[in-house]
Amino acid sequence: MTNSGNVPVRHATMRGRNLAVVLEHIARHQPVTRARLAELTGFTKTTVSNLVGILDDAGLVVDGAPVHEGERGRPGVAVSLRADGAAGLGLEVGVDHLSACVLDLARRVRYRHVVTGDNRGRGPAAVLAALAGLAGEAVAAADGQGLAVSGAAVALPGLLDRENGVVRHAPNLGWTDVPVAGSLTGLPAEYDNEANLAALGELWFGGGARLGDFVHVSGEIGIGAGIVVDGRVFRGAHGFAGELGHLVADPSGPPCPCGGRGCLEQIAGRDALLHAAGIPAGDAAPGVLAARLAGGDERALAAADRAGRALGGALAAAVNLLDPDTIVLGGVYPPLAPWIVPPLRAALAAGPGSLRRAVPPVEVSALADGAAVLGAAGLVIERLLADPAPLLP
Amino acid sequence: MTNSGNVPVRHATMRGRNLAVVLEHIARHQPVTRARLAELTGFTKTTVSNLVGILDDAGLVVDGAPVHEGERGRPGVAVSLRADGAAGLGLEVGVDHLSACVLDLARRVRYRHVVTGDNRGRGPAAVLAALAGLAGEAVAAADGQGLAVSGAAVALPGLLDRENGVVRHAPNLGWTDVPVAGSLTGLPAEYDNEANLAALGELWFGGGARLGDFVHVSGEIGIGAGIVVDGRVFRGAHGFAGELGHLVADPSGPPCPCGGRGCLEQIAGRDALLHAAGIPAGDAAPGVLAARLAGGDERALAAADRAGRALGGALAAAVNLLDPDTIVLGGVYPPLAPWIVPPLRAALAAGPGSLRRAVPPVEVSALADGAAVLGAAGLVIERLLADPAPLLP
Repeated sequence: MTNSGNVPVRHATMRGRNLAVVLEHIARHQPVTRARLAELTGFTKTTVSNLVGILDDAGLVVDGAPVHEGERGRPGVAVSLRADGAAGLGLEVGVDHLSACVLDLARRVRYRHVVTGDNRGRGPAAVLAALAGLAGEAVAAADGQGLAVSGAAVALPGLLDRENGVVRHAPNLGWTDVPVAGSLTGLPAEYDNEANLAALGELWFGGGARLGDFVHVSGEIGIGAGIVVDGRVFRGAHGFAGELGHLVADPSGPPCPCGGRGCLEQIAGRDALLHAAGIPAGDAAPGVLAARLAGGDERALAAADRAGRALGGALAAAVNLLDPDTIVLGGVYPPLAPWIVPPLRAALAAGPGSLRRAVPPVEVSALADGAAVLGAAGLVIERLLADPAPLLP
Repeated sequence: MTNSGNVPVRHATMRGRNLAVVLEHIARHQPVTRARLAELTGFTKTTVSNLVGILDDAGLVVDGAPVHEGERGRPGVAVSLRADGAAGLGLEVGVDHLSACVLDLARRVRYRHVVTGDNRGRGPAAVLAALAGLAGEAVAAADGQGLAVSGAAVALPGLLDRENGVVRHAPNLGWTDVPVAGSLTGLPAEYDNEANLAALGELWFGGGARLGDFVHVSGEIGIGAGIVVDGRVFRGAHGFAGELGHLVADPSGPPCPCGGRGCLEQIAGRDALLHAAGIPAGDAAPGVLAARLAGGDERALAAADRAGRALGGALAAAVNLLDPDTIVLGGVYPPLAPWIVPPLRAALAAGPGSLRRAVPPVEVSALADGAAVLGAAGLVIERLLADPAPLLP
């Protein structure tokens, strides 16, 4: 696990900075002896021992079994991240679900809960109240496992003003200028775009560093892209980068809640795809679509082909502009990949493929729907490791 | 002038790093006293004096007139970058011209030379030999002004393997896999995409930091974009980012040398625009186009309108994916702006404008054609200031 740089921190004190350095090395190399930490950090063994002692008192690390390093000498005692100390809560507001996930410091999943239900019908206040309820249950469940949730990150499907905690525009939820900051009482929380957090989920729990720089496509009712460059989310000047779903796929296509026409998500988004295949939207609908595709249903096959070509065209623009190493398809696409990926690849190769002679490989996420909530919880852990000071006694 | 971070440097020695820190502060704050440099850098006054002495011996800085800082005490002697010491050479291979430009350390233009002539007819060897001749003349002219050119950067219109100095694919020149490294004998040189260097030219000599994160559109025969984020060029995983000209503007449009069809540059590139306006390509053709537009020529007006709309559509994709603060139009577009910008803005507002409620302002570069060669020379100076060690006695 590396510090992805998603959490720029200015440490108030030299001690705070040194604690973060030691903690990062423990996270990356655990179990690891104090002697090895001294080598890795350049600090003296005494300094390392003092810093590890502070982290231990704060419940962040724990001494484990003795380990032999090298061929001679006494065994050292290896330090690891503590599995029953601080924890991070990830939450997600989807168009048709709410979900929660708790990770411990070693980023193991300790709790997950998904509640399906359409969030378009009820207002933001009801949705946020339900989310706060879900958060409370998660914190209590974590507490039952000896975990203390120290903060939360919330994934939302729209354009956010992250600084002020306001959803500026979430067309698929029908939300405009909805303040969300403070809706989780008693828990420090931050709010981010679903597609960005899904990309971080893929970075930490999916393909990882092997993917290089990648574009992660979150195929939900809307379609967002998370752009990961050098292990960080590329957010743009106002945090609105990666709006792949609003690239125009067909200028004469259907109108989009964004105000545009023929946007990619009106052709390749989940509900658009189901509609084109003649399947009513609903909980089991993506499964029905996969079954019809497998059965050779003509209408389903035509819808998947059209969606794949539209995705390939939009991703051709993304490849020309962003030049990633890899493209990853997430959300509803993985089970549909056998039918969507071939036309996607063909459309992609017809664009930048000819210029570059090779287009980036298109991979299918193994995380599917869960990526954003995992990325959200992972971001809380990332923040803890990058700046443990608030947890110190 | 700030270090834009375009030149990541690992200094071999602490002295090298400290010299670069002092030199950067001199560049940014000149004329500046040693006492102020000590405040700015955190070094002791003795250390600053020693480092300034080394830079002075190397001919990089010079003492100027005494300056008073604060209300009391002796005047200090202010240090500045030396105007007649080291210099940087920028070169450009355009489809229809070669150009050279020399900057001194303070990035003042000390020499410029543009030779027009079609480079598509003759092979790469002849073009590179002519470029080397131009470079030799520039170095001699700089020498005549007391300037010592320490290196060069070359702008090329295509996809480059920068590490190995190979033009992978420059469709508008007709070059494929052309090695360019070493073509300028006796001068360390690097090679970069024309659009990237034009964006750096805009950053250093045009709109500057006021632009924030920006997309600079180089409208030549081809169309490239330079993407500047946090003062650096965003290059992508393989250095191929920003290929705006190969976004598909019209799927049923004309074929493109890249192998695609209906690429933006086949509609809004210089020659495509002239062709649509019924004007033969040639040196004075853009001027003829501007004159016909001003005179209300129907065919010219239709061509400019179509080009503007196509540019707006491609830039809508760029805004959705990259979320810049500003868009800057360069190359051949500035004199055509009154006719191209209104349809461009309309197309842009119809795309991401509706989602964001505001699209980035579209500005017109004051540098026009010269941006890339200025950016190339500026990059050499940036490199010198970031790592003066090679110039030290």
